[in-house]
Amino acid sequence: MSETKPQNHRRRRTVTSNTTALRASAYRSLVNPFPPMNVFSADEVENIHNTSLRVLEDLGVKVMLPEARKIFQQAGARVDETNEMVFLGRDIVQFALDHSPKSILCRAGTPTRDVILELGRLAFQPGAGAPNATDLVRGRRPGSAADYRELTTLAHHFDVFQMMSPSVEPQDIPVHLRHYFTTEVQMTMTDKFPFLFSRGTAQALDCFEMVASFRGADDEAFQATPHSYTIINTNSPRALDAPMAQGLIDFARFGQLSIVTPFTLMGAMAPITVAGAVTLSHAEALAAITLTQLVKAGAPVCYGTFTSNVDMKSGAPAFGTPTHFQASLAAGQLARFIGLPWRSAAGSASNCNDVQAANENQFGLWGCLMAGATVVIHAAGWLEGGLSVSYEKLVTDAEVLNMVAELCAGRPAGTEEIGYDTALSQVEPMGHFFAAPQTMERYRSEFYEPVVHDYANFGTWTERGASDATSRATHVWQNILATAEPLEIDHNALASLQAFIAKRTQEGGAAPPN
Amino acid sequence: MSETKPQNHRRRRTVTSNTTALRASAYRSLVNPFPPMNVFSADEVENIHNTSLRVLEDLGVKVMLPEARKIFQQAGARVDETNEMVFLGRDIVQFALDHSPKSILCRAGTPTRDVILELGRLAFQPGAGAPNATDLVRGRRPGSAADYRELTTLAHHFDVFQMMSPSVEPQDIPVHLRHYFTTEVQMTMTDKFPFLFSRGTAQALDCFEMVASFRGADDEAFQATPHSYTIINTNSPRALDAPMAQGLIDFARFGQLSIVTPFTLMGAMAPITVAGAVTLSHAEALAAITLTQLVKAGAPVCYGTFTSNVDMKSGAPAFGTPTHFQASLAAGQLARFIGLPWRSAAGSASNCNDVQAANENQFGLWGCLMAGATVVIHAAGWLEGGLSVSYEKLVTDAEVLNMVAELCAGRPAGTEEIGYDTALSQVEPMGHFFAAPQTMERYRSEFYEPVVHDYANFGTWTERGASDATSRATHVWQNILATAEPLEIDHNALASLQAFIAKRTQEGGAAPPN
Repeated sequence: MSETKPQNHRRRRTVTSNTTALRASAYRSLVNPFPPMNVFSADEVENIHNTSLRVLEDLGVKVMLPEARKIFQQAGARVDETNEMVFLGRDIVQFALDHSPKSILCRAGTPTRDVILELGRLAFQPGAGAPNATDLVRGRRPGSAADYRELTTLAHHFDVFQMMSPSVEPQDIPVHLRHYFTTEVQMTMTDKFPFLFSRGTAQALDCFEMVASFRGADDEAFQATPHSYTIINTNSPRALDAPMAQGLIDFARFGQLSIVTPFTLMGAMAPITVAGAVTLSHAEALAAITLTQLVKAGAPVCYGTFTSNVDMKSGAPAFGTPTHFQASLAAGQLARFIGLPWRSAAGSASNCNDVQAANENQFGLWGCLMAGATVVIHAAGWLEGGLSVSYEKLVTDAEVLNMVAELCAGRPAGTEEIGYDTALSQVEPMGHFFAAPQTMERYRSEFYEPVVHDYANFGTWTERGASDATSRATHVWQNILATAEPLEIDHNALASLQAFIAKRTQEGGAAPPN
Repeated sequence: MSETKPQNHRRRRTVTSNTTALRASAYRSLVNPFPPMNVFSADEVENIHNTSLRVLEDLGVKVMLPEARKIFQQAGARVDETNEMVFLGRDIVQFALDHSPKSILCRAGTPTRDVILELGRLAFQPGAGAPNATDLVRGRRPGSAADYRELTTLAHHFDVFQMMSPSVEPQDIPVHLRHYFTTEVQMTMTDKFPFLFSRGTAQALDCFEMVASFRGADDEAFQATPHSYTIINTNSPRALDAPMAQGLIDFARFGQLSIVTPFTLMGAMAPITVAGAVTLSHAEALAAITLTQLVKAGAPVCYGTFTSNVDMKSGAPAFGTPTHFQASLAAGQLARFIGLPWRSAAGSASNCNDVQAANENQFGLWGCLMAGATVVIHAAGWLEGGLSVSYEKLVTDAEVLNMVAELCAGRPAGTEEIGYDTALSQVEPMGHFFAAPQTMERYRSEFYEPVVHDYANFGTWTERGASDATSRATHVWQNILATAEPLEIDHNALASLQAFIAKRTQEGGAAPPN
């Protein structure tokens, strides 16, 4: 893990004359080099924060888990049990903000895969939580165990995904056993920071046990630093359902990371304006964050937002739009206002990996980058507003993320790079630099080498079959799957893991509560 | 033309509750809202500038037009006539920088189409200068007069293109008459700021005559403010050929705008490093700018760069790469260092309008935007590194540019937008905002309405034929061409224009010099 301070990206230059391998490994720990962009004034941001506090205090949040209401009440919140409403005073929220960590070290399976979440850092995740998988060879189908394994291999392959995501739901595995499968796959097929479901305490405890044991962490070590994370969506507007509240409690209690994300679609479950939707999202995020800190002050928690708009003609969700971009900027301002690491999201509403899908995803991505997002979820592969993950789109989006990671590395401009003696003075007018000493020294590694982009001219490209980037991406993912090397794993740890799963399966697994 | 200061984009908000028509008209005059990003330190930028001056002074530039060498010599430059080399002292360059205008008002056919070029402003042009046109209906073919007309109609249609570009070469019109055709089309089919070829003095004077006469400008008015522009490419490295030098002289002499653009591909005609390539590009641009100011101090001239890299395996040019992005950032820093408006470029190396084409173009575009480019050329439609302009890509890229223009408008966050009383307090937990007063007031116009992006769900999209964005773009441009309204034009001016062309054609036209 680099010790470089996030604010000074100039120190994080890759040595450009190094090999491709070194270039790639720099993708594991990124510092955001993009100057944060503001959409609102400082006064407007403060006003939004204060309005969110007013929403929490006067309008309240419906909290559907009795245990959570009790925790809020014990902290001094006013609770109305008749309608499950919790009214949170500003002092309680401020207590939570004072105790939420500003920097979170996330422990992966290998130290070089650890991720630090704090303002100024940058991490990417592929598309998450989709019911369907799709690719050009097999078409669109309900997500399966096979898809989940393959998508794990693909996500593991690209260093630019620093965190794993719940790619697709493996729907051929019963829900009461699914968490064993997804956790085992993540332990054995990747050493990246894993995602765990929060579908009831029984599942969470199973998963914690599996990760802690497989990683060789005792209770103290496991709980001292997060070894896993979950994603908590509120039920906008202004509700926190029982499973989500339970997840916040379980993960906080065991020192694991919750990434809190109200999913607020402007014009549907949120106000139609960016300012209104972000005010609502901020209020809900603060309520969820507060719950974690009341459970355990200092528990790892990440602020989050996913705010886009619906198409007002059809009510359909849209992503990668100007208002999505601006909502990211606004959320970034609020995250900086409270000082917490935060997650944002890219994504696309397109139904196939076409130009719309590329443009929406990249447009939304730049919103996240210029908003200073710490984690960008759904950064690759997400189609249909999250109803499918595309193998090809995962590859073509990874290309864009790789290029962003290259920008994170900066670029030196010293005497050697300017090259007055080794390049500029070595070539006659209208000559070429192919053989200049500076070129000869650097040509192997100066430029990013694309994964799927093709620079062949029209004639050569036509001769080769005129295949577009999406078709070429099929070959890329097929090749990755065909040549993936198995991870080196501890066989004792694996045996224990499998024994635990066998035992728990025999005991009936762990169904999520209704 | 808005009087708003470029640095304060918050004032340029569109009134979001206004109609789509009002929203669209705001695209005509954009102020860049993106915080400029630096890739080099201030010291590095100064060092690059000084090295460029050293290149001009010690290595020199080959200037292939005798008249241009004479102008440089009269200003005190050392000239070696045996090899056509000109060695420019720093004082001469500084004279030019002192006199180059920092803000340029470009006169279009209608005042609402005027464009101001200065740092902080933002203008887009569609892809320019391609030998071929391509679309899904008719395939790829050499550019023709019909294509040029159609692409003029498409460029005119989208307000987000504030300037016209030489889209494709109408190769079915002989070169000695081509400038009559392209100028007539621009005068009669659009009132946007026109592009004129600089292919010899005879052609330039023909074009100036046509524009001045058609716009009703006498010599003094025409020469006082640019009514047209041209693009000047140097012959990197370190050469200025006769037609380009002549163009700089002709346009400066008549007060018309030259946009100076060294086209420097890292690893080929420029050093392999970003720093080296930008040093070369900066030197060449300074030489060309200096020529314009020696011809006429204060002549309108725009600094420019187009620096990307080649694929070192094949030598093929690449666009929308990390080094292209960084070169734009570096050029932006140099433009701010010398204080001049400047042009940059997006573009794609892809051979069809696919995901690569979208991702490269948008990636390069963000480089331009974050570099604070005043004019982004090739912002839409450019494929094959400029060998073709795609009708479909022009449409899909225009969608992205529209969304960028929406961001330029900013977004308010006052009491009404936050909407505590009209939205947040009006909806119960887990309810929806479809009927909230704030929504009812704004739903018609709150969000950007896409040109070609489709938000239908998978089922509906499949029923409708599962067509991708590129296929849908075909219908978009066909519809624009089918429904385009002719421009209202002065029939006397048209008659004069046509009479002039007939006369000049009879006289033999104006062949470009060899």
